[in-house]
Amino acid sequence: MDEVEPDLATAVRRADLIVVAVPMDAMVSVLPPVLDATAAHQVVIDVGSTKQALLAALAEHPNRGRFVAVHPMAGTEHSGPEAAVSGLFEGKTVVLCDAAHSDPDALRMVEDLFHALPMRLLYLDAADHDLHTAYVSHISHITSFALALTVLEKEKEEQRIFDLASGGFESTVRLAKSSPATWVPIFRQNRLNVLDVLDEHLHQLQHLRELLAREDYEGLTEQIQQANHIRKILP
Amino acid sequence: MDEVEPDLATAVRRADLIVVAVPMDAMVSVLPPVLDATAAHQVVIDVGSTKQALLAALAEHPNRGRFVAVHPMAGTEHSGPEAAVSGLFEGKTVVLCDAAHSDPDALRMVEDLFHALPMRLLYLDAADHDLHTAYVSHISHITSFALALTVLEKEKEEQRIFDLASGGFESTVRLAKSSPATWVPIFRQNRLNVLDVLDEHLHQLQHLRELLAREDYEGLTEQIQQANHIRKILP
Repeated sequence: MDEVEPDLATAVRRADLIVVAVPMDAMVSVLPPVLDATAAHQVVIDVGSTKQALLAALAEHPNRGRFVAVHPMAGTEHSGPEAAVSGLFEGKTVVLCDAAHSDPDALRMVEDLFHALPMRLLYLDAADHDLHTAYVSHISHITSFALALTVLEKEKEEQRIFDLASGGFESTVRLAKSSPATWVPIFRQNRLNVLDVLDEHLHQLQHLRELLAREDYEGLTEQIQQANHIRKILP
Repeated sequence: MDEVEPDLATAVRRADLIVVAVPMDAMVSVLPPVLDATAAHQVVIDVGSTKQALLAALAEHPNRGRFVAVHPMAGTEHSGPEAAVSGLFEGKTVVLCDAAHSDPDALRMVEDLFHALPMRLLYLDAADHDLHTAYVSHISHITSFALALTVLEKEKEEQRIFDLASGGFESTVRLAKSSPATWVPIFRQNRLNVLDVLDEHLHQLQHLRELLAREDYEGLTEQIQQANHIRKILP
């Protein structure tokens, strides 16, 4: 027990629903004392980007049933209360993980909350969640950090970046403004999945590089046509 | 002379300003006959993404002075007339290349046009233009095409991509919807600059990969803090 605990317990006692939104390394240590202080009528959710490590850490907790693991697939590159955006979650997907491990009444309260926003509810187990978010979210952050580092390294004239940055550059580099306090713990907890998709990404980039290096413009056209297939999924 | 020429000449004759907006491989063959048909009071501009090959092809043209090479740094991933966006150029940068090779009255007409939109005018020589656009625009398209190929390869369940794609993924993959007819000629004409920045990007990605593989989270934090520096340039 450290001296923060009494305040935490007091804060928890007043709430019907406790939302824990902290970086994933802190999440693993903050959630157990929050669940310790949770009574039978209360519900706790996280809103974190990785689930396996967290749910393993909570598996034996006596109040595990009061916890519902959720991941709303929406956010911005900004952090802190001043980064709040009205309507951020509307129409977006929220993933509920290992829902069978939550008490039915706790799950129902959380489902009602997200239906009301409204969000689209998707049920995945923790392993599937971490795999698919590595593919569709975490790798985007790696590529954006690397793109920012690339341009900052090559383009020594910062005014040129400002002058020439079009909407295309801004959108690919936007995620590179994201905080290391948020993202390093995510990469750490989802390390093997992130390495796996990052290796595929390096392979695809190397392939495009080879086609351009050997002036295989038909091959390059075919690869771009294949990449254009993303239009059918995200119009 | 092929049979298209008379129509081209007729169309050119009616205009004060002729804007040629075609892929860069076509640009190099379309602009000479357009300039052939251009009278002393008329002005021709392109709006293309590469300049060195084009300006080399036009260097000896007797009407070179009537041509002003411009590159508005704005656009979308969509092509064709139905992709027009009102206000697209407002407040953006337009690059004017090798402006000293244009007749003063032709240059003035084009400056007046872009000031009126209004756009910010930036003067570069063709070599600098191609170098800096490789850094700030062309590499973004390569990374986005590679990201789309990566996710399409790893994520066999297309519905999962649709369900889990957040704003972050959508913004990094948006440029991957761009047409190969537009982009292969750009990569071809700016091949050495694009290869150079692509090699730096591969190096940065490999470095992030190594830090994660050997669990050097301090090193990863430092790299992300360095990438965050892009905030100061593009707030």
